[in-house]
Amino acid sequence: MDFFSLFVMDFIQQLQSPTLAFLIGGMIIAALGSELVIPESICTIIVFMLLTKIGLTGGIAIRNSNLTEMVLPMIFAVIVGIIVVFVARYTLANLPKVKVVDAIATGGLFGAVSGSTMAAGLTVLEEQKIPYEAWAGALYPFMDIPALVTAIVVANIYLNKKKQKEAAHDHESFSKQPVAAGDYSDQQDYPSSRQEYLSLQQPADNRVKIWPIIEESLRGPALSAMLLGLALGIFTQPETVYKSFYDPLFRGLLSILMLVMGMEAWSRVGELRKVAQWYVVYSVLAPFIHGLIAFGLGMVAHYATGFSWGGVVMLAVIASSSSDISGPPTLRAGIPSANPSAYIGASTAIGTPVAIGLCIPFFLGLAQALSGG
Amino acid sequence: MDFFSLFVMDFIQQLQSPTLAFLIGGMIIAALGSELVIPESICTIIVFMLLTKIGLTGGIAIRNSNLTEMVLPMIFAVIVGIIVVFVARYTLANLPKVKVVDAIATGGLFGAVSGSTMAAGLTVLEEQKIPYEAWAGALYPFMDIPALVTAIVVANIYLNKKKQKEAAHDHESFSKQPVAAGDYSDQQDYPSSRQEYLSLQQPADNRVKIWPIIEESLRGPALSAMLLGLALGIFTQPETVYKSFYDPLFRGLLSILMLVMGMEAWSRVGELRKVAQWYVVYSVLAPFIHGLIAFGLGMVAHYATGFSWGGVVMLAVIASSSSDISGPPTLRAGIPSANPSAYIGASTAIGTPVAIGLCIPFFLGLAQALSGG
Amino acid sequence: MDFFSLFVMDFIQQLQSPTLAFLIGGMIIAALGSELVIPESICTIIVFMLLTKIGLTGGIAIRNSNLTEMVLPMIFAVIVGIIVVFVARYTLANLPKVKVVDAIATGGLFGAVSGSTMAAGLTVLEEQKIPYEAWAGALYPFMDIPALVTAIVVANIYLNKKKQKEAAHDHESFSKQPVAAGDYSDQQDYPSSRQEYLSLQQPADNRVKIWPIIEESLRGPALSAMLLGLALGIFTQPETVYKSFYDPLFRGLLSILMLVMGMEAWSRVGELRKVAQWYVVYSVLAPFIHGLIAFGLGMVAHYATGFSWGGVVMLAVIASSSSDISGPPTLRAGIPSANPSAYIGASTAIGTPVAIGLCIPFFLGLAQALSGG
Repeated sequence: MDFFSLFVMDFIQQLQSPTLAFLIGGMIIAALGSELVIPESICTIIVFMLLTKIGLTGGIAIRNSNLTEMVLPMIFAVIVGIIVVFVARYTLANLPKVKVVDAIATGGLFGAVSGSTMAAGLTVLEEQKIPYEAWAGALYPFMDIPALVTAIVVANIYLNKKKQKEAAHDHESFSKQPVAAGDYSDQQDYPSSRQEYLSLQQPADNRVKIWPIIEESLRGPALSAMLLGLALGIFTQPETVYKSFYDPLFRGLLSILMLVMGMEAWSRVGELRKVAQWYVVYSVLAPFIHGLIAFGLGMVAHYATGFSWGGVVMLAVIASSSSDISGPPTLRAGIPSANPSAYIGASTAIGTPVAIGLCIPFFLGLAQALSGG
Repeated sequence: MDFFSLFVMDFIQQLQSPTLAFLIGGMIIAALGSELVIPESICTIIVFMLLTKIGLTGGIAIRNSNLTEMVLPMIFAVIVGIIVVFVARYTLANLPKVKVVDAIATGGLFGAVSGSTMAAGLTVLEEQKIPYEAWAGALYPFMDIPALVTAIVVANIYLNKKKQKEAAHDHESFSKQPVAAGDYSDQQDYPSSRQEYLSLQQPADNRVKIWPIIEESLRGPALSAMLLGLALGIFTQPETVYKSFYDPLFRGLLSILMLVMGMEAWSRVGELRKVAQWYVVYSVLAPFIHGLIAFGLGMVAHYATGFSWGGVVMLAVIASSSSDISGPPTLRAGIPSANPSAYIGASTAIGTPVAIGLCIPFFLGLAQALSGG
Repeated sequence: MDFFSLFVMDFIQQLQSPTLAFLIGGMIIAALGSELVIPESICTIIVFMLLTKIGLTGGIAIRNSNLTEMVLPMIFAVIVGIIVVFVARYTLANLPKVKVVDAIATGGLFGAVSGSTMAAGLTVLEEQKIPYEAWAGALYPFMDIPALVTAIVVANIYLNKKKQKEAAHDHESFSKQPVAAGDYSDQQDYPSSRQEYLSLQQPADNRVKIWPIIEESLRGPALSAMLLGLALGIFTQPETVYKSFYDPLFRGLLSILMLVMGMEAWSRVGELRKVAQWYVVYSVLAPFIHGLIAFGLGMVAHYATGFSWGGVVMLAVIASSSSDISGPPTLRAGIPSANPSAYIGASTAIGTPVAIGLCIPFFLGLAQALSGG
């Protein structure tokens, strides 16, 4: 069977790709008791460089795009990116024993976009000689960045609500437990930044103020590096440093971070045992559901503004893909309490092979059936 | 008007260049309250790599130069580099409310050389088919490095004198205030290294010993990295690591440091409000004055040893340029108490556009008028 | 005399190579009292990247090798790598006043392989039109990695035995002196990791358990990074990150580490004064002895499986070479108490010129005499 063999082949290739290889390598050396340590300051600068690069990529793509023509597909890409996070928040997160932050982070990763899945989709379209807009690839950042921002904001809102409820019960003990960034213990189901606590303890009522949390999330190291890169990409000409520095070093720095995340994941892989089956179910179904939402919105753009069928397929493929590159470092920095073995495992090991091996041919067939091509 | 439009275009281009874009980006995210932090150990290694690269560039250029032929222009380049610092020390520094260390650092930056201004000058000479010595570009390090070394030494001498005067008034309280490197508070108008204090407190008289301060400056992390690079460039063959490592990473590492300096500058930009007009006046006049001094010395070399008119123009252009690349990291490490928003703002935002847009055509016209060409 | 002039030329070239130039530069600036400091977290990540790269290189070479054909030469390469360390352990280490850990580290470095010496050998074989197996260069990691692993394990066994003996004498004072990794004081003649102490103090008898020490050595940061790279190179496809990141940055990162090692070496160079002559004797004789052992084993492979004479020469050249690249960072991390001025000085300043200038022609002549060619 063609679909299945494609899927298996892609699964094995994924395991050998540097991204997943270093992740698994990190888990194995952690399991073997290695004393290898990557200093925290190095992780900080790696995350900064990765997120700045992701922002720059998006910003440069936006600057070089024909915005008037792509305005509707662009808006739909943003909408899909946001919806995907809420889908995870209200499905996966409510399954028994699944941790809410892990589910939100997984949603963020499935909303974010995989460059390699997108490249595979574009290649298939070209092989089949199906026309599509040249700027289709530039839709990437419009789904990628909103999904990650939404995931981080939603996670922080959830964590604040939870915290406030607990604080109402037991105010004293809470204020004695400051949370260090980079502390990944089981109990640390808190937001990544501490300043919120102060502002949250002031109101006597139990309502959580949403806007300060959004503001706080945007000010955090993860999002401010990504948004800085985005702004520099749009408004200035950072191409020289992008091409000589941020872009060529990206994959190598990511490999180091994946190793670190693998070592971190190992210590928390036990949490997954009882709920692993839910992640498998989610990872198989989500690419199709996200793709179908995007396909539907793409059809709206097709009939409204003449967006090509090839473009509709690409929007669906982008939506069905899950990020192996931009997502992990962003979520590690933005939602440190989420378990990387949950979201990266779900995305890289199952989501990506499903998207490449099953979703690309599925949406291509769907478009051909609907267009009568 | 041609001069003016050139100036405005270059000003806008400068704002979009990665160097200034990251600086402004840093100021903006600091203003917005970003929690982004670049670890101090990363800043340390970035400064080390940048300064080693600056030294290596100079050393390799010197090794590949025909020293006997260029001895007089070379000596004149060194002299101009040193004079420029003293010009700032005895003009800008004495203007009302201008901080002395800021003025000295600004002088260092205007004495140092901008590679892009030099490249623009060489391009114009070639377009106009004006002959010049092939080694004219190799005069670069002979002005650049002496200017930066002089600025750091002069700043440390000033800070020591000031400190000793205060220490004479209030000896006790001083010894209780050790200064941490990397502490950029307003009060910290001290030299960058602490060892001097001990040696300075020993003499009963009020005279400041100059030589220990020079020695101390040369031993500091900034100058010892730069001089190490210079020595390695002259005496060994570091081309392989230069080409594979120090040179390609330079601009990217600089962008990170500029971001850090932007964030640091934001917290101190208020200091500038009352004195900004003096920096504008200095930044417009200084390129012409420095260029004229160099032009005069170049004419001496022209009549004494046949230094070409094209070479005289280049010496003037190098002198009128101010460093956007080598200067900021060197001065940040060498004179940590100087305010980066003062010296970088003056140099990059005004000095460089003036040098490229106004000084290059001015000195070219002057040479053509004097040579009768 | 041809041999001698080759030797002197190569000696001078070695001094100018970036590796040795940065080492000597570090010693000189340390001697001049420079305050330059490379942060420890930077050294940690540099060592990680260098050792991962060394492992990846070996792993990729092994994956691309024809293992069945090269099985015997491969086994012989491993044997030579191990023997060389024991040769140093039972000759150099027993000479008067030579420190045992320094001798073991020196043995590790002479067992490890120099890529440049190997390249020089391959070039000479091609110039002389002597046929050799295409995979001869892939024997590199089979000697390099076992030698370094053996050196670290043997050093840790020695240090544990020594420690236990002292602990038996004076149990109390010992437990009060925890040893920090990265502390290079004279007294710190301890293994690199502390966990052993606990396990070692439990047995009442004086026997040192070997296996826990081997396990501990393999778990240390140095060997776990190298073995991780090796495994990733063999079992996955890390070529993209290898080519874009680990390989191009290697020499540059090494230059920084050599500078650090130079600064560290300066403070300990005094230890060498009384024993320097023994290192000179060892460094001149060892390349010949190691090469002859390998040459003999190579002849066994020649008569047993038809291993070519060119291959026999290469095996001998690989054995006579000493590592200037992979060795220093590995040994610095794996045997921190060994004096880098001893092992690097012996290897780079004397061992490598002897191997290139004297051993290559010697083994070539030997092969030609024996083969009747």
